[in-house]
Amino acid sequence: MTRVGVIGIGHGRFGRRSDATVQELAFEAFRAAMSDAAIDRDALDATVIAAVPEYHKQRSVAGVVQEYLNLNPKPTWLTEVACASGSAAIRTAYMAIQSGLHDCVAVIGCQKMTEMETAEILALMGRVGEVQWESVFGTTFPAYYAMFATRHMHDFGTKREQLLQVAVKNHHYGAMNPNALFQKEITIEKAMASDPVASPFCVYDCCANADGAACLILASEERAKAASDEVVWLDGVGAATSSMSVLRRPELTGLPSAQEASRQAYEMAGVTAKDIKCAEVHDCFTIAEIMAYEDLGFCAKGEGGKFIEEKRSYIGGDVAVNTDGGLKAKGHPIGATGVSMAYEIISQLRGNGGERQVPNADVGITHNVGGIGQYTFVNLFRRD
Amino acid sequence: MTRVGVIGIGHGRFGRRSDATVQELAFEAFRAAMSDAAIDRDALDATVIAAVPEYHKQRSVAGVVQEYLNLNPKPTWLTEVACASGSAAIRTAYMAIQSGLHDCVAVIGCQKMTEMETAEILALMGRVGEVQWESVFGTTFPAYYAMFATRHMHDFGTKREQLLQVAVKNHHYGAMNPNALFQKEITIEKAMASDPVASPFCVYDCCANADGAACLILASEERAKAASDEVVWLDGVGAATSSMSVLRRPELTGLPSAQEASRQAYEMAGVTAKDIKCAEVHDCFTIAEIMAYEDLGFCAKGEGGKFIEEKRSYIGGDVAVNTDGGLKAKGHPIGATGVSMAYEIISQLRGNGGERQVPNADVGITHNVGGIGQYTFVNLFRRD
Repeated sequence: MTRVGVIGIGHGRFGRRSDATVQELAFEAFRAAMSDAAIDRDALDATVIAAVPEYHKQRSVAGVVQEYLNLNPKPTWLTEVACASGSAAIRTAYMAIQSGLHDCVAVIGCQKMTEMETAEILALMGRVGEVQWESVFGTTFPAYYAMFATRHMHDFGTKREQLLQVAVKNHHYGAMNPNALFQKEITIEKAMASDPVASPFCVYDCCANADGAACLILASEERAKAASDEVVWLDGVGAATSSMSVLRRPELTGLPSAQEASRQAYEMAGVTAKDIKCAEVHDCFTIAEIMAYEDLGFCAKGEGGKFIEEKRSYIGGDVAVNTDGGLKAKGHPIGATGVSMAYEIISQLRGNGGERQVPNADVGITHNVGGIGQYTFVNLFRRD
Repeated sequence: MTRVGVIGIGHGRFGRRSDATVQELAFEAFRAAMSDAAIDRDALDATVIAAVPEYHKQRSVAGVVQEYLNLNPKPTWLTEVACASGSAAIRTAYMAIQSGLHDCVAVIGCQKMTEMETAEILALMGRVGEVQWESVFGTTFPAYYAMFATRHMHDFGTKREQLLQVAVKNHHYGAMNPNALFQKEITIEKAMASDPVASPFCVYDCCANADGAACLILASEERAKAASDEVVWLDGVGAATSSMSVLRRPELTGLPSAQEASRQAYEMAGVTAKDIKCAEVHDCFTIAEIMAYEDLGFCAKGEGGKFIEEKRSYIGGDVAVNTDGGLKAKGHPIGATGVSMAYEIISQLRGNGGERQVPNADVGITHNVGGIGQYTFVNLFRRD
């Protein structure tokens, strides 16, 4: 099978972007990616848009973005699987190219969230959970993940401090990322003392809503090779689903969909977890990153707490995780997140990580979770 | 290039389905399609869901459907381009199979609309139009299409009676379709006398919101040939976009996206408009079907009114259009519509049209429009 290469990447600043509409956010990232690819619009065949439309007053997000980028009449479509939409869009672009239908496709993740009140957002997000038997009883997203954390602490002795060490690490790297929402270090003491959200979580266990966009330009092997001698390749695309409902899950301390999606991506690329040098994982809450270490095979089940405590997910450890600050410090504009994750991995594989460069980065993955794990998409990138 | 074949189709009843949730609607169509394909779940690799989530209290529609169909942990993703979502989902399933990533994919279009008040639906739909400069001034969908009709009448002398002859035809065929919302004939007199909606439209110019679902099982050429000697093939997939805004359109009497998408589909399949024996077109309003005749090349520009008046879009005419009753009589559950259109065309190509069978049907298309034409997807089906 031929390969799909990344020929351009772009990223805007994440945060409260009252200066920009969703199409303007998309344009920032798109312009940067097109400039990076050194191509013009004629070279593009189509776009795939990742966004969750219900947070925007303006629906038909794909159409609005397509027009604002001056890409009519080229085709576009929107891919939505809650917070994993960005990675699913990358997957459908991969398919579009491998199918031979398109040769060069832009994937644009974009989201405005800060136009809405937090209470409205929480209510909408709750509806991503099971509405008939669960969210109606108050299982907002912090509450769902708090249950996972409680069970992990009970089963494996995972400590509050270990959870918050994830936040300390991600703020450490976020402080070096000019696109991050929070560009400041935090201490474990400050994190422990922050206001409670849903027991055991306090504020610093939770990622923040944000506005933002990111863009990748993907191309066929032939086109990518012609564009550059140092292409980063999308060599693995894994995707899997789990039950909507925590009541019907076989376990609460891991996401079956993440285990299966990573297995697929590793198998497709012919690698194992040990080969992964850098990973962007879906740290919507601190426990989510700890579960990801285990689900992705970076450590054994139950050892995620120790893994962060021993700094094995820092640069210089076993695998560098969330070197851009993660959802925690960078912010989580839901449709943009999966594409933003890929942006960071590709930057690392290109050796453009700057002061947070991962040494010898040749294989990296993104782990992007929708809902409470009803979807996980794992994309694997590699440089030769 | 290898082909993608249709190995199963299923369709539920469209209408006010207070008896079923969206996942139950999906299951009805899925069960019928799986039974038609004579395969079990193990044979399926993935599903693509078409729905516009904002009409449902339960979001994360793909996850809910996937679980209800007992398909975890197989991958799923949702494709959304407003009312064209169903056809875009068929397109991404085509890509998934042609890419070699999957061998057998179910496409499920499903939508619940009648839980909401009509006024709420109109407000939400308005947001699919351009919110900054247009919908804020009252351009609901009937208003947009009424402008197209007014211009078509002005430029080409298209008559009110001709518009409503589209409705008469579609009710004629809807009366023979047990899945249709309205299974009754109407007369031109009754249609002309119905209540005004947006000048020149009255009630019978407009399609009706509905709940419903439809499903296709698509497979690789090898798998499809092994399944049956009489496979219907998805031989053309066209897709294009136009401006969100009527202000920025080069014309108001046709949809540039439809012209381009059909051109692509014909070219891909090596056919011309004259080869099309049956078509399902997006008759959200009567004028939309008349514009479709012209955009798809069934008649010359401006002659759409005469085309219906002369019954050239009836069975036995040049091309049989909307033999299932169309959006007008069958109902328009937006996410399901594109898949439902494909269901009818495939039934016709298989010779299963019953009393509304199109003679010698060997090539048929679906023309599925999102918004006011910001997207059009044209899928072309053929039997050898």
